[in-house]
Amino acid sequence: MSSPASTNASQAMPPSKEMLFTLDNPVFCCYLFWATVLVVKMLLMSLLTALQRFRYKLLGLVPLALRRKIFPNEEDLFFKNLEVKFDDPHVERVRRAHRNDMENILPYFIMSLIYISTNPNADVACNLFRVAGVARIIHTLVYAVYPVPQPSRILAFATMLCITFYMGAVVALRTLSFI
Amino acid sequence: MSSPASTNASQAMPPSKEMLFTLDNPVFCCYLFWATVLVVKMLLMSLLTALQRFRYKLLGLVPLALRRKIFPNEEDLFFKNLEVKFDDPHVERVRRAHRNDMENILPYFIMSLIYISTNPNADVACNLFRVAGVARIIHTLVYAVYPVPQPSRILAFATMLCITFYMGAVVALRTLSFI
Amino acid sequence: MSSPASTNASQAMPPSKEMLFTLDNPVFCCYLFWATVLVVKMLLMSLLTALQRFRYKLLGLVPLALRRKIFPNEEDLFFKNLEVKFDDPHVERVRRAHRNDMENILPYFIMSLIYISTNPNADVACNLFRVAGVARIIHTLVYAVYPVPQPSRILAFATMLCITFYMGAVVALRTLSFI
Repeated sequence: MSSPASTNASQAMPPSKEMLFTLDNPVFCCYLFWATVLVVKMLLMSLLTALQRFRYKLLGLVPLALRRKIFPNEEDLFFKNLEVKFDDPHVERVRRAHRNDMENILPYFIMSLIYISTNPNADVACNLFRVAGVARIIHTLVYAVYPVPQPSRILAFATMLCITFYMGAVVALRTLSFI
Repeated sequence: MSSPASTNASQAMPPSKEMLFTLDNPVFCCYLFWATVLVVKMLLMSLLTALQRFRYKLLGLVPLALRRKIFPNEEDLFFKNLEVKFDDPHVERVRRAHRNDMENILPYFIMSLIYISTNPNADVACNLFRVAGVARIIHTLVYAVYPVPQPSRILAFATMLCITFYMGAVVALRTLSFI
Repeated sequence: MSSPASTNASQAMPPSKEMLFTLDNPVFCCYLFWATVLVVKMLLMSLLTALQRFRYKLLGLVPLALRRKIFPNEEDLFFKNLEVKFDDPHVERVRRAHRNDMENILPYFIMSLIYISTNPNADVACNLFRVAGVARIIHTLVYAVYPVPQPSRILAFATMLCITFYMGAVVALRTLSFI
């Protein structure tokens, strides 16, 4: 009934329904790895933002007289002769990339997690996870780290978007009777 | 031990504990469908934002001389005589609606997913998913697509908020001993 | 095969693989509780923002003549002689704290959920959940409610960040062969 000899079988037979969200399911393991990669990538964006802020602070590039006097977090000013401004282009670029990550990767996490519950073909699902993960890493590189001309970023963005839509279509068709 | 005849039973007996996150559980299927709907809705907000941006670009409504000279992503300027500005009211409205989605729908995804693990009554849970999903679709319509006077948006917002709080109360009471 | 006497055993033997995401697993129960706490905390940030907005509206502190004329949602103006502005420092502080929550807590939800699937040591996992939950509550208090000098906020921020990275390392090492 429950498969007894699947302790170490990675690419073996399709798992039973109770085993979909365990380490015995290679699709779930692949999801685990790439979800971890994307979570770490997202968290590094916070550190990249802080790095950009500090670089400017330390280099003294923040002009002391700003037209719009906005002091966001006064406790953040480690050096008393500095001000924080909001519209530094480098910091804002990283923040837009970070927001774009939240808008796309977080729904993808949920979508791909519940996609696993439909017990998809292992090769298809694993390759979708891999392509989506690599696409978002490329997206970050061409958006926040080293900007390159436009078709590259929009292609990386569209790759994960299309994969999420495909997963959504699979899940919705399987569960359409529960509307 | 494991229910043998539940392959096609949708509204049948309550599922055993091992089966909560499988397609045999009608509550989970209902969650799958409505989570997919909301994920797709959220991703469409990205496209709606891009559409709003392009509409203005193509119509030439972006004034060439802006008081605050901010050039966000220079590689985005497909036409060289255009500038990108940040505070276009239509674009910003869609972006606020999108941010509101992230603030509310993403925590709801987690909350309702773990709510299923408490094995709730099927009718209650399914109807909560349906109401929450429809409420957020209405929220987007009255916020970003066709603005209407105020009580409508705040009601749609409060509906999902209250549902999430209710689920949180159920889960917290069941797991209070693990604080 | 499946443990027969584990109906009420909370701190008993480690659960079998099929039981990881059920209420029989004390690690999962602990996750449920603290995830619920953090979801509720995040949703309260929305209400705190609204409260800050209204406080200023009601006190009449919104200056009627603003240099930058931005009218975000005209349907939000309950009183016709009021305007909405974007850069109120108290509102923006709460919104930055809320965005920081989204950037950190939402990836943590996914990371810690899939961390459970590696069947970690119960004491380690539960204490990680507790420390991360308390750290983010402190983060909100020192950021949005009552600002205090800096090392406090950055410590609370780094606590959850490090816990998420640790979980990511555990999961990635277990699933490295599925790259």
